[in-house]
Amino acid sequence: MMVTLLTDFGLEDEYVGVMKGVLLTINPSVTVVDLCHQIPAGDITQASWLLSWSWRYFPKGTIHLVVVDPGVGSTRRILCLLHEGQTFLAPDNGVLTTVIREAKKPKIYAVTNRRYALGKISHTFHGRDIFAPAAGYLSKGLAPHRLGPPVSSFKRLPLPVPLANRSSLKGQVIGIDRFGNALTNLPEIQVERLRRKGSLQIRLKGRTLRDVRSSYSAVGRGSPLAIIGSRGLLEIALNGGSAAQILRLKRGDSVEVTHS
Amino acid sequence: MMVTLLTDFGLEDEYVGVMKGVLLTINPSVTVVDLCHQIPAGDITQASWLLSWSWRYFPKGTIHLVVVDPGVGSTRRILCLLHEGQTFLAPDNGVLTTVIREAKKPKIYAVTNRRYALGKISHTFHGRDIFAPAAGYLSKGLAPHRLGPPVSSFKRLPLPVPLANRSSLKGQVIGIDRFGNALTNLPEIQVERLRRKGSLQIRLKGRTLRDVRSSYSAVGRGSPLAIIGSRGLLEIALNGGSAAQILRLKRGDSVEVTHS
Amino acid sequence: MMVTLLTDFGLEDEYVGVMKGVLLTINPSVTVVDLCHQIPAGDITQASWLLSWSWRYFPKGTIHLVVVDPGVGSTRRILCLLHEGQTFLAPDNGVLTTVIREAKKPKIYAVTNRRYALGKISHTFHGRDIFAPAAGYLSKGLAPHRLGPPVSSFKRLPLPVPLANRSSLKGQVIGIDRFGNALTNLPEIQVERLRRKGSLQIRLKGRTLRDVRSSYSAVGRGSPLAIIGSRGLLEIALNGGSAAQILRLKRGDSVEVTHS
Repeated sequence: MMVTLLTDFGLEDEYVGVMKGVLLTINPSVTVVDLCHQIPAGDITQASWLLSWSWRYFPKGTIHLVVVDPGVGSTRRILCLLHEGQTFLAPDNGVLTTVIREAKKPKIYAVTNRRYALGKISHTFHGRDIFAPAAGYLSKGLAPHRLGPPVSSFKRLPLPVPLANRSSLKGQVIGIDRFGNALTNLPEIQVERLRRKGSLQIRLKGRTLRDVRSSYSAVGRGSPLAIIGSRGLLEIALNGGSAAQILRLKRGDSVEVTHS
Repeated sequence: MMVTLLTDFGLEDEYVGVMKGVLLTINPSVTVVDLCHQIPAGDITQASWLLSWSWRYFPKGTIHLVVVDPGVGSTRRILCLLHEGQTFLAPDNGVLTTVIREAKKPKIYAVTNRRYALGKISHTFHGRDIFAPAAGYLSKGLAPHRLGPPVSSFKRLPLPVPLANRSSLKGQVIGIDRFGNALTNLPEIQVERLRRKGSLQIRLKGRTLRDVRSSYSAVGRGSPLAIIGSRGLLEIALNGGSAAQILRLKRGDSVEVTHS
Repeated sequence: MMVTLLTDFGLEDEYVGVMKGVLLTINPSVTVVDLCHQIPAGDITQASWLLSWSWRYFPKGTIHLVVVDPGVGSTRRILCLLHEGQTFLAPDNGVLTTVIREAKKPKIYAVTNRRYALGKISHTFHGRDIFAPAAGYLSKGLAPHRLGPPVSSFKRLPLPVPLANRSSLKGQVIGIDRFGNALTNLPEIQVERLRRKGSLQIRLKGRTLRDVRSSYSAVGRGSPLAIIGSRGLLEIALNGGSAAQILRLKRGDSVEVTHS
């Protein structure tokens, strides 16, 4: 049984280790996988994107713990979502938007049953006191409906949607990765549709890139390029360097693809 | 069987991975949990606090490896402490102070038996050469007294103690977490005692905060607050930002709590 | 069965977590160990050194995944090297140089069989799409020759070699660790040979250090020293601080050892 952790806890404190301690105390045979702990503090949108690019690579039965939770201690709910044989535990702050929008009839429970939480619940660390124990019991076979009542409404993030027409595709930069690649919200399938009509131009920050390439080394060292990245999205990269740094790209920058 | 690792090795070198290799070579069935590897180089005090906030969340039988060890290669001893069914391996530099002070009759051995170490012992990496093998053998059932002779004296850190009188509580900031929360050494139980006498004022850096809150969102966005954090200690936080940055807090800053 | 991961992916994206998801989906019983993910982007040389200091501490049967792969998506090959009972999967960009140069008749296969890869292979993330599945199948017992044909030539890095004569030893700084210790390419065995002839002087950056010490605390606090580090190499360190920072050391700096 696998449990993944996605948090904004960083690695300089004991938060992540202690969550694992609680989880493994309840179920010592679980395999814990760190998805990411470096989400910028409270950045629900980035956590939601990252989750959407990850969960499909885990086997059925996996439990994903998402603790990016700036509303901890307030009245925000904690949700347990079942989707395609996997389970997601997360605060009801929109972080599950990317997963929920795929589900036709999302099956969601509110986590309210204190029987499956630590005896004392702190104001600021529900990851340890509620999420980790819930994941521990679920991984041991607890039925999700035992955690609390089903819910039918929940918070959704207003994620940017690409604008497509016959001759162009407009989107934006939604993230910068470790290598300085700028990820856009333009999916391969829409880029390919345009490509079949003619060679492509990609415009951003007053610059035009030609074509979508199939490797970084398809352009000269130090040159920028557009490529379909590993998430099935158009990315702006730079051979041997950081596109974000050289082209001064940041989240929210507009990107337009046209064919000639 | 679980083994936790707490070091100042960081994650940019091979140190942590190699310790795990040694440990898992001796006992492949151990579950290794990273408590933290980002302790500032040689910061024994911070490691000792972090350990005190963590070990209780692990099951009986857990072995905690603490390798914050600026005296490596000198004559400093290595200790094996048994406490409440858990085992702690650490250099005798005071890092176990927080755990030992709870124990009435601490049971401690010096780790001297080279039979349970690697064949060649380096000058600079006893984490790999002595600590990891000792943890490996202990996890396989080696009796602790086989590691070396019992010891009765050991180094203790002079950790700051809160000053409490009838109407006030004086302490200090003992750490800043990833979110910029300032942790103090003032325990919930003492804060609550004062609170029962009247509403509280928390003073630090010439500023006064009113009351102890129960969630970050109890104050306006961007406002500072006092809250009992997940360690059972008074923390100074800021809704939606870093208290440490905005209020310029650092370790050692004085904090005073009074009632009106 | 153990699989180690050595990459330049960092920990701020989902790359490492997703590789583990793919690997554990294929073989849930594998133990995954992070060797390091903080290799500077595309720094093949540093990855090769780090690997050479690590793999021997893992048991026979271990599979080492090395994904520092700036040529991903180009025609560069992926190699599977068998050496001393361990298996190494890496791009053919020289990163295996340190391991291959020890092998008399290195046994190497090109990884070409798409049957042991994900169904869809991206342009930019072969770690997930090819390396992780290959490791998964190997860990389940797949014979390496099933991955692809044997190869006899492969890329090697021009790593710096120490220059030794009767009275001196010349090398260079090949890395700086987390603590600011400067690692050189001068092996203990050659330093010891010189030491038997007289007391040593170590020269670098116009400064002379006397003797090779056996602990950081052998010199005063804040003083630099030379020591044989945990990799069996001469290191330049500083008691209680960062040698690299104080002495302004960087990769490539010359180091000379002479006897008096």
